[in-house]
Order: sequence, then structure tokens, then C-alpha cells
Amino acid sequence: MPIITLTTDYGGRDAFAASVKGVILKINPQAQIIDISNEISPQDIWEAAYTLKSAYSHFPKGTVHLAVVDPGVGSGRRPIIAVTESFYFVGPDNGLFSLIYLEAERLRVHHITSTHYFLPNPGPTFHGRDIFAPVAGWLARGIPSGNFGEEITDYTKLNIPAPKISGNSIEGNIVHIDRFGNLITNITRKDIQPLMSEDSELSTATIAVAGKEIKGLKKYYAEAAPGEPGAIVNSSGALEVFLYRQNARATLAIKRGEVVRLLLS
Amino acid sequence: MPIITLTTDYGGRDAFAASVKGVILKINPQAQIIDISNEISPQDIWEAAYTLKSAYSHFPKGTVHLAVVDPGVGSGRRPIIAVTESFYFVGPDNGLFSLIYLEAERLRVHHITSTHYFLPNPGPTFHGRDIFAPVAGWLARGIPSGNFGEEITDYTKLNIPAPKISGNSIEGNIVHIDRFGNLITNITRKDIQPLMSEDSELSTATIAVAGKEIKGLKKYYAEAAPGEPGAIVNSSGALEVFLYRQNARATLAIKRGEVVRLLLS
Amino acid sequence: MPIITLTTDYGGRDAFAASVKGVILKINPQAQIIDISNEISPQDIWEAAYTLKSAYSHFPKGTVHLAVVDPGVGSGRRPIIAVTESFYFVGPDNGLFSLIYLEAERLRVHHITSTHYFLPNPGPTFHGRDIFAPVAGWLARGIPSGNFGEEITDYTKLNIPAPKISGNSIEGNIVHIDRFGNLITNITRKDIQPLMSEDSELSTATIAVAGKEIKGLKKYYAEAAPGEPGAIVNSSGALEVFLYRQNARATLAIKRGEVVRLLLS
Repeated sequence: MPIITLTTDYGGRDAFAASVKGVILKINPQAQIIDISNEISPQDIWEAAYTLKSAYSHFPKGTVHLAVVDPGVGSGRRPIIAVTESFYFVGPDNGLFSLIYLEAERLRVHHITSTHYFLPNPGPTFHGRDIFAPVAGWLARGIPSGNFGEEITDYTKLNIPAPKISGNSIEGNIVHIDRFGNLITNITRKDIQPLMSEDSELSTATIAVAGKEIKGLKKYYAEAAPGEPGAIVNSSGALEVFLYRQNARATLAIKRGEVVRLLLS
Repeated sequence: MPIITLTTDYGGRDAFAASVKGVILKINPQAQIIDISNEISPQDIWEAAYTLKSAYSHFPKGTVHLAVVDPGVGSGRRPIIAVTESFYFVGPDNGLFSLIYLEAERLRVHHITSTHYFLPNPGPTFHGRDIFAPVAGWLARGIPSGNFGEEITDYTKLNIPAPKISGNSIEGNIVHIDRFGNLITNITRKDIQPLMSEDSELSTATIAVAGKEIKGLKKYYAEAAPGEPGAIVNSSGALEVFLYRQNARATLAIKRGEVVRLLLS
Repeated sequence: MPIITLTTDYGGRDAFAASVKGVILKINPQAQIIDISNEISPQDIWEAAYTLKSAYSHFPKGTVHLAVVDPGVGSGRRPIIAVTESFYFVGPDNGLFSLIYLEAERLRVHHITSTHYFLPNPGPTFHGRDIFAPVAGWLARGIPSGNFGEEITDYTKLNIPAPKISGNSIEGNIVHIDRFGNLITNITRKDIQPLMSEDSELSTATIAVAGKEIKGLKKYYAEAAPGEPGAIVNSSGALEVFLYRQNARATLAIKRGEVVRLLLS
């Protein structure tokens, strides 16, 4: 059974995501459709890019990842298919797949121009249903990506903030805040490891965020003292600030984008 | 694989929708169950009717659409199956399928009375699980709709507001507000077109809503000036008022039911 | 098709639940994955236990129920598989399956120690993806539960409040508040029936909650007067306090845990 995933800002209350699924199933009745998230904040391309990146690689080879956060719907922005060594990505060319581009070993991007794959008379406000859903459905049925349009090289990439390393300190940003209020940074194990001679140095590191200083990294959440912010390298390899069984975002009154500094001793 | 969709006010936190799905899968293990929405506002029959209408026709022929927003659960209100040329609809007879009735070319409605299809001893508060789920499961396995009960003609229809056309002006209402805060009206392309000699007249139309005047219709969202309300005929053919990358409902402090006037020049 | 259900506090906005699903589908591409709920309040083990209990028995025999509300993730708390006469349960040993243990006729609990079923290098914060998802995937492919680890008997059970019966009165608690604001108690039909000589006595029973007195039990919601709290034995056999077409939790300003007294005449 072909798998198609969905990453959108359509929400769960309206029938937007369901309409997309209906269109896919009409073309490809065998498809198994899995929501990555339909609760992306409205028009938040970065959040969609980050969320898709967190999950896409865990799916079986050949999965078609459909993503639609599309403030430019109906305008001149291009519909695209990105093809990596293991996956297909279908959506608008607005930077949604920027983090995929960074991780891909092989990458081809096609501008979708073969309108005969679309629903008849696509409207101006819902290309998820009229354009992207049928393209994903046909792609998952085995239509080669080249049939949908020419390869392009000038596809849109978001400007992605990279952590700044100087001496034994790293300055990064909060790039995502999850449901639990955990603050995920763009500082990763790969950034940290070259600055350390031993793993044990993590226990003496200092993390500065929102006017607070956190001493040392924890090995698991429950190790932190109640009510005290803790830091951890999480299961995706990213430095994360948390409050055990509480919500760090709410307690620290912090937002995406704020600066986090890691100082190794 | 038979497809069954779900439109309910059960929410995503409780196990109501999952219990419905379990019951269906026990009867019909091959069924693919797709949520249209489980986030309908509690007891809001109109919202459910509107949401179901937005999506049902995009599903493959033969799909069983199960809808349960059911303030009369356990009382004398009848459980019904509505059968159109392409779909089955299962739910309470409280008007939930009113918009389907309007669009159907052929329509039969059955009062479900064959209790041997129900779970044993249905309780008074959860007919979605005890009555409607098993009926949908058996229906999707091919049991003819006539086996569930006699045809009726006095099924319940909601009183649906129609736009009023006088001269070159149309007065309608906001019938839905979507996740993005877009205000969807009951004024459609079909209402507008007979009043115009050319499509270009739309650019000189005036839309009055919530004390604001909007000049002309946009071709796509991004065409609107930031912070200025815009109007568009959306991908479902309905006149819609929006704020580009903002939430028109919140900014205009508007509610479902409010009047919208379209004046063609 | 094997069925795997999901009960978590991962929410619908992040990609946590989707990552779990991707890992399962990579191991078991035939699996049909059904969400029981991913909207459990963060770290609320009781709510997860209650929600899982409401739905699990409605699924086909052989279903694998995966549940992850896991404040102790990464610490020493054990990963377990519980096996009953009809189902498998996979999750952390923190009491999540307490209500299953109570209802099971046959029960075996295994401590999962066979790390070769895990994803390589499980991280400290996301065992749902790295440990529980692959175990559920392999279990649903037919790997015997005994292959995952030794049977244990000292598994964790929550302290579950039982109603107190004295004479013809029963004192219980609100154990769950659902999406509609209905207040579900731990007083069940089984507790009530031995105290009555006839069913009709329910119409003269008195229910005391939050300083209000409710006279008699209703047969269905719509029987209650608007704005007046009503009580009913719901479709799960539990005594429930409600406000017809309103939200009892909000109107009565009540919380989970509060006392409810039933007095039979």
C-alpha cells in the first residue's frame, strides 16, 4: 500500500484535510494516508518545514509527503515535486522543503505544469485539494515525477539560522516549541561534540536562556529538580530546555527565535 | 477497501471517535475510516451539515458518510440512512443531511429499525457507537440499505437561509467561519453570474460587511493589501471575506449569521 | 490487517504521533493505525488510563494498544507488554494499564528487554518512537510477547478510587470530564443495582454534587429541563452529571476528583 503523509495548516475542525484525502483516495484507493500534522499555525511555513523534517525520515522508502502551507495560493508561486533518494515531496515552492533540501543526498525538483493531473477547473484558494492532492495521488500510483513537469534549480529556500560557534561557546536560537512547552534549539550534538574532549564535560556546561542560567545537561527529564529549568540533548540530537512536568514556554514566557547560549567549561 | 468517513462533535481528546472506529473495524476489518471532522462545535447541527457538505463529494463512489451530532440521542428522534446516486449517509434524523438532500439527484431515506444490526443493549447516550457505527460497518460490507428499515419521506430538513437578490444587489449571510478566520457566505457564483454581463464587473463590485466596504473582488488572497479586508469567490464557488495572512473573524469581530451585501455596478 | 491503536499526550500539532506511525509502518506496512487519543493532558497518566479503558474493548481481538504518557521517559522505569485474553498493550510501566489489569480475566505482563527490537541508539526523550513503536510493530507482525522479555508480577498499579457504599447511599468521585463538559463518576450501575428493589427507584434518587441537588435520573439527555443539571446512567454504565446542550463543568465550575453522592430513597 502506498503511503501519503499530510502536513498542513488546515486544522481539524474544517473539512479541508478530509477533502484532500477524498481526492487522493478517488485516484488511489489503496493509499494509506497519515497525518503528520494539520495543526501548523496558519501560514507558518517555518513551523511546517520543521514539523515535516522531524517525521519524514521515519516513514517507509517511497512515501509521498504532501505539505501545504500556502499563503501564496492562486498567485504565481510554483507547485513543485522534490525527489530525494528515498521520498517524494509535493507542495508549493515557498521554502516548505528547505530542511529536506539540506539533508538530501540526491535531490531533483520539478515544477508541476502538467495540468491534466489536476482536478478540473482548479479554484484560487484551495490548491491542496485541486492540484497537490491529485498530483500526490498519481505520484503514489507510480507516475514518474518527470511526467509532472520540468526540473528546476531555482527553487525557494528559507534563510535558516545556524548556530554561531566561537571558542567554547555556542549561540543558537529556539527554533520550535513543542506541545509540552519544551524549547527546542538549533544547537545539535554535532555542534557540541567538537568542542568537548569528553562527554562528561556536558555536566559542567552552562546554558543561558531568558535571563536564566542552567547548570549542566540532564540525561533524562525526571532527573531535573521540580520547578527548575533543565537542559538535555533530546532524541533528535537537539539541545532542548524543559521544565520537568511543567511547561517551560509558559513559565519562562519565551518565544520562538529567542537566543540560547551554551558555554562548555 | 470500503471507505467510511466520520463527522462528529466528539472531539479529539476523548475516546468517542475511537470507540466508533473500533466497532466498525470489528464488523468490517477492511474498512478505511477517514475523519472529515470530529471537532464540530458541541451540538452544532448546522456546522456539521456544512462541513460534511464541503467534503463528501470528493470521496469515491460508494463511500459511507457517518455523521453524529446528536443532541436528541436516546429520545424518539429516528436513526436514518440516506442514499443518493453515489453515497450513503448514516446518522440521526435531525437535519444533519439537509445540504445533501438539496444537492442529491436521486434520494431515498430509510428509518433504521432493524435492531439486530445494533450492538447488544444500546445505551442512552452514545448511539454513535451502539447504533450508527455498526449500521455503517454493515452497510459498507454490502448489506442493502432496505434491510435496515422502511423508506420514509418526512425526514427532517433544516431551514436553510437563501441569499436575497433584488436588482443588482445580493444580500446573504455568513454561514461558516473557517480555521483561518475567513468568512464564508451563502452567496455563490451561481447567484452572482446572472446579474453580470461581463466577468470584469466583479472588479467594480462592492461588498458590505460589519460596517466595512470592500471594493472589488480579488483573484487570489495575496493580491489584497495587508490589513485590508478582501473578498473572493473561493474554490467552492462561495463569496468569502478574508484578511490576507490575518484572521478576518478576530479583526472584524464578526459572527456566523451576520449579513453580507454584494452590490454589482 | 493488524490494528494498532495510539493513546498519547503527544498532541496533534507536533510530529510525535506521526513519527511513531512512520516507525510502525516501516516494520509493519500492513498495519492499520487508529488514534484513540493523542490529546491526553501532558503527563496525565490517569486520563490516559481512563481514555484507553473507554475504547480498547471495542476493537477486534488481537489489536495492539500502544499507550505512551511517560513522564519517566529515559529513567529506570520499565517498558512493558501486557497481554490479556484478547489484546496486547505496549507502554511504560507507570500504571497506564491499571484499569485493564482490573478488567482482564487472564493477564501476563512482560518487561521488554530485547533491545534488538528497538530503533538503533534510542534517545532519552522519545521512547514512543524509539522503543514502543517498533515493539508494537513487531508484536502486530506476530512476534510472541515472550520474545520481548521475561514475565514480571510487580508491575505498577495506580491507586484507583472506589465508591463507598453505606446503607442506601453511595459516595463517589468525578473521574473524568468529557469534551461536552459532562461529569463522569466512578459510581456504576453495578454499584447502584444491589441497593434497589425496583428500577423505578432511580426516578426518586437524589444526586448531590458541587452544592447542587439533582432529583431523579433521566433516561436521556433531552429529557432534562434547559439550564438544570441532570443525572443519567450513561452508555458505559457510569453515573454522569450533565447540563442539556450546555457544559456542566463550566457552569458548575467543577473539577475532576470532586465528590458526588447518590442517595436512593
